Amino acid sequence: MNRTFDIAVIGATSLVGEALLELLDEREFPVGKLTALACDEAIGQVASFRERNLRVRALDAFDLTDVALVFVLEPLAPAQRARIEAAGCALVDLSGAPGSTPCVAAQANPQALVGRQVRAPLPAVVALAEVLAPLAGLLALRRVTLTACLAVSAHGREGIEELARQTAQLLNARPLEPGMFGRQIAFNLLAASGAEEDGHGVDERRLAGELREVLALPELPVAATCVQAPVFFGDSLAVSLQCAAPVDLEAVERCLDTAPGVERIEAGDWPTAVGDAVGQESVYVGRLRRGLHDPCQLDLWIVSDNVRKGAALNAVQLAELLLNPRP
Amino acid sequence: MNRTFDIAVIGATSLVGEALLELLDEREFPVGKLTALACDEAIGQVASFRERNLRVRALDAFDLTDVALVFVLEPLAPAQRARIEAAGCALVDLSGAPGSTPCVAAQANPQALVGRQVRAPLPAVVALAEVLAPLAGLLALRRVTLTACLAVSAHGREGIEELARQTAQLLNARPLEPGMFGRQIAFNLLAASGAEEDGHGVDERRLAGELREVLALPELPVAATCVQAPVFFGDSLAVSLQCAAPVDLEAVERCLDTAPGVERIEAGDWPTAVGDAVGQESVYVGRLRRGLHDPCQLDLWIVSDNVRKGAALNAVQLAELLLNPRP
Repeated sequence: MNRTFDIAVIGATSLVGEALLELLDEREFPVGKLTALACDEAIGQVASFRERNLRVRALDAFDLTDVALVFVLEPLAPAQRARIEAAGCALVDLSGAPGSTPCVAAQANPQALVGRQVRAPLPAVVALAEVLAPLAGLLALRRVTLTACLAVSAHGREGIEELARQTAQLLNARPLEPGMFGRQIAFNLLAASGAEEDGHGVDERRLAGELREVLALPELPVAATCVQAPVFFGDSLAVSLQCAAPVDLEAVERCLDTAPGVERIEAGDWPTAVGDAVGQESVYVGRLRRGLHDPCQLDLWIVSDNVRKGAALNAVQLAELLLNPRP
Repeated sequence: MNRTFDIAVIGATSLVGEALLELLDEREFPVGKLTALACDEAIGQVASFRERNLRVRALDAFDLTDVALVFVLEPLAPAQRARIEAAGCALVDLSGAPGSTPCVAAQANPQALVGRQVRAPLPAVVALAEVLAPLAGLLALRRVTLTACLAVSAHGREGIEELARQTAQLLNARPLEPGMFGRQIAFNLLAASGAEEDGHGVDERRLAGELREVLALPELPVAATCVQAPVFFGDSLAVSLQCAAPVDLEAVERCLDTAPGVERIEAGDWPTAVGDAVGQESVYVGRLRRGLHDPCQLDLWIVSDNVRKGAALNAVQLAELLLNPRP
């Protein structure tokens, strides 16, 4: 029996949506009918799946009865969520909306997936969790401090166009007109990530909260600074871990060498977002080193494709866990 | 009596050398004769001081007898150092060479300057020290964790040209030929900074060691990750401090509002390297916040012009301390 599943993707024409459709095809997910949906100006646009064009339809006018699973890539109104739930669809939520459904990085905490709905964490959390979850048994983690240098593609095509536009203006010595970032992002780094509360940005709070949840360490102190970097694709994370005991570096390396989704780069070399991670389905970790002044500290450098790996691949893997298409 | 001092600058045609000559003029340093020197292919080039051109002369052929102070902006051989010392010149050393002379950020630890020779720390250490030194009395510092995103101008004109060249190649969809960084630096972040030992880069070791020395906290654990960012000018530092007691944020703000060389940006806004620091003579600090999960933690964001402020201005200020030209 070759069972197939009807799938709906809300936000199929976004960067993540495109990557998601590609991965559903590449991974031979048993898709029956795929419907591209949207709630906004994307209605009427064209998505592409298995070399066929799909006209994007309006979520509110679409009958979800036969849909097995919905990928949600953009914010929904409560009534829209209620309709999906009432139709009995499984749901993979990448919208970033908070909720009581479990937050899961498919290769880090699949055991947390219960029920038919799941929230996907920030792409940077997927990358962190795939590295830290296997280490959590080895290292008694006491604190995580990190700087997350995030790609502009987190803001979709608009972010990419803005960085390209600003860069071209500056290289041509034309006056800069800041657009969506409100400042110069080309050849610059921006420190804030979303509106702030007590000085912490929305993304920083989300990152810390989701990391705790995915690692099942609800009391772990996390200090995150999110930086908007002038990089098109790929997040770069400088991470410092404090542990309860001196770090056994060789044991850490052995552990990461068998960690799902993780590629370890040997000492002496190190990965970069553009050179290693972009377009790939692994998280790359390197520069593993014990603290210069503290043997109980482990410093490391992680890069990951925020769109393909951190968002789209995790979403497809979550769908595979939810529907279990290959029993 | 208007006393003047003869000055020699070894490396006057470098980016830092140019900024140094500008600042000596702007700050009305009582320069008698200024001589531009070099040991390498810069001999014969032309530097500019007070709107006059200076032909760069060879250090080894120049008589240092009447020189009161030498700025060293490039690596010297031991014999060259010995000559300067034998001539009785005061010395401000920006070459990064290790040594037993005190390492001083002029506005952070001027009291450490004894004798007639001084080492200037990395520009990022000047920025860090100007913010942390005034806080060290208020906060019982237990640990500093930071990510230093460094501008390509740390590598001089060659670094700037490489970033501009790569960026233009990529925007014009031409194949990239990595040059001095060995990798793509345009639209990318590089994790390593110099050759490594136990996984820690040369710059990371230097940064940690100099920060301890400048703060006079020789046991302070410092964890630094140096990142080469695709930024022309201006270092950006994401810093997390662990303290022995809960942080009084208002006291921190009051303290920084009177700290020499520091501009504090109010909550809700935040500084950037390009938008605030470049071309300025202050270090800008913002995003002051208590740890999300730890009241004994203070997170902050510091930006500073690495060439003008972190290197050249500090050098001139060190010269002012050494020669005390305005008694």
